[in-house]
Amino acid sequence: MTLLGGLDYASVLVFAAAGSLAASRAQLDIVGFAFVACLTAVGGGTIRDLLLDRSIFWMANPTIILIAVSVALVVFFTAHLLESRLKTLEWLDALALSVAVSAGTGVAILEEQPAVIVVLLGIVTGVMGGLMRDVVCNEVPLVLKQGELYASAAFAGACATLLATRSGLSPLLTLAACTALTFALRAGSI
Amino acid sequence: MTLLGGLDYASVLVFAAAGSLAASRAQLDIVGFAFVACLTAVGGGTIRDLLLDRSIFWMANPTIILIAVSVALVVFFTAHLLESRLKTLEWLDALALSVAVSAGTGVAILEEQPAVIVVLLGIVTGVMGGLMRDVVCNEVPLVLKQGELYASAAFAGACATLLATRSGLSPLLTLAACTALTFALRAGSI
Amino acid sequence: MTLLGGLDYASVLVFAAAGSLAASRAQLDIVGFAFVACLTAVGGGTIRDLLLDRSIFWMANPTIILIAVSVALVVFFTAHLLESRLKTLEWLDALALSVAVSAGTGVAILEEQPAVIVVLLGIVTGVMGGLMRDVVCNEVPLVLKQGELYASAAFAGACATLLATRSGLSPLLTLAACTALTFALRAGSI
Repeated sequence: MTLLGGLDYASVLVFAAAGSLAASRAQLDIVGFAFVACLTAVGGGTIRDLLLDRSIFWMANPTIILIAVSVALVVFFTAHLLESRLKTLEWLDALALSVAVSAGTGVAILEEQPAVIVVLLGIVTGVMGGLMRDVVCNEVPLVLKQGELYASAAFAGACATLLATRSGLSPLLTLAACTALTFALRAGSI
Repeated sequence: MTLLGGLDYASVLVFAAAGSLAASRAQLDIVGFAFVACLTAVGGGTIRDLLLDRSIFWMANPTIILIAVSVALVVFFTAHLLESRLKTLEWLDALALSVAVSAGTGVAILEEQPAVIVVLLGIVTGVMGGLMRDVVCNEVPLVLKQGELYASAAFAGACATLLATRSGLSPLLTLAACTALTFALRAGSI
Repeated sequence: MTLLGGLDYASVLVFAAAGSLAASRAQLDIVGFAFVACLTAVGGGTIRDLLLDRSIFWMANPTIILIAVSVALVVFFTAHLLESRLKTLEWLDALALSVAVSAGTGVAILEEQPAVIVVLLGIVTGVMGGLMRDVVCNEVPLVLKQGELYASAAFAGACATLLATRSGLSPLLTLAACTALTFALRAGSI
């Protein structure tokens, strides 16, 4: 598995958990959990792939959907054990955002897009899954709440990934550092 | 006309009626009726076709848009005669869901997608049109209401269509039986 | 630059301003402004290009994103000077709608689509950016408010553009007249 492929898996895992918690707050049934988990997990990457006109990352690899559904099943049976689903959701979402921004930026760099587009696709990949989840679940989108460094954290992470790649840093180091940066900014405002 | 093409027509017809009723509840003007009717009628199939990277089913065949618009006009002048627009909307939506799930699953099988993707695309085709209608019309999405077997009915219908096709049942019988199954599950929870 | 390219720029400029005002009403931070400005500015045209399966107009030309971001920055520092942000937003949105409908219809005619599809894509290009802005910003979509000739103005503009082109009017005159028609209809109902 490539590094970027691994990042896609990681963000799917964490976004699916965040999506399932949103489904839990909306008191959906078990298929509703799986539906919202998949929407959150693959939403941002799907829009990235549609815009880049490349094949959708999970169509070529249905395992990704199975991972999201498995996470939804686990959360369905354990969500009631959490003290605060909203707090956990926000932390998971912050983690998924960080990983997804790095993954989205990395793919756009691979596709040799200009800098502006690379940064924008990084933000889109990170932000859109959670945004669709919130719109579908009738919650105020996290990206919109005042005082939350949401789009800003994604923007900083995408810029840093781009700069580090252009300056020749190793991919592993780049992605690790930029994920950490996005997460630190976002987590600092929760 | 092929069987699948006919199903697409049928789901457009019924979804357009459901969309027009939502427009009526939101007290839109006549073009607003047509807009919401088209969004509901072709929304799910459009996302399916974008994901599959095939040509959008209604771009190649504008008659589909004309059907949706005609339905919107008829509903515009008759909606006030209904006793309960919400109840009628839910029943029409259940019928359209059933037909669209079969149509979406059928197309994905034709495109030789793996089983997981087939089921997912069946659900997407069935659910997304109504979901976009509800988001745009500021209603709580039907797919989210508690106690409604919405995504679950779509899931069961898509699985049944896949199983029946794999076991060699005739297409006509498969699609009829699976539409009936989805409808029974969904209607039972209205 | 072609005439249609120029129209795309103009609608991006005005839609970005309207989107930034919506961000201001939602009290977002500066990156939030840029995000909503871009979503509003390129949303409708992006859906048009996805449906037509042509390359997305701003992916090939990142200047468009820079324009939208610049507008967002200017509005971020000046929005508080406005007497009524809602009133200004509605007027800017009306102007952007008019320009975008002409641009969308023009592109669909160039791609030699049938009449029904041309009109539909004109409406989609004009309406979808503002619709996504309103859904994301938790406002009641302008396209849905009663007594507002929103979709109707877009419909009339798209039909007029199509008729004028078919009857051989010069492109410049066609686009100017049809933009004026859409704007007059929409502005009359504000």
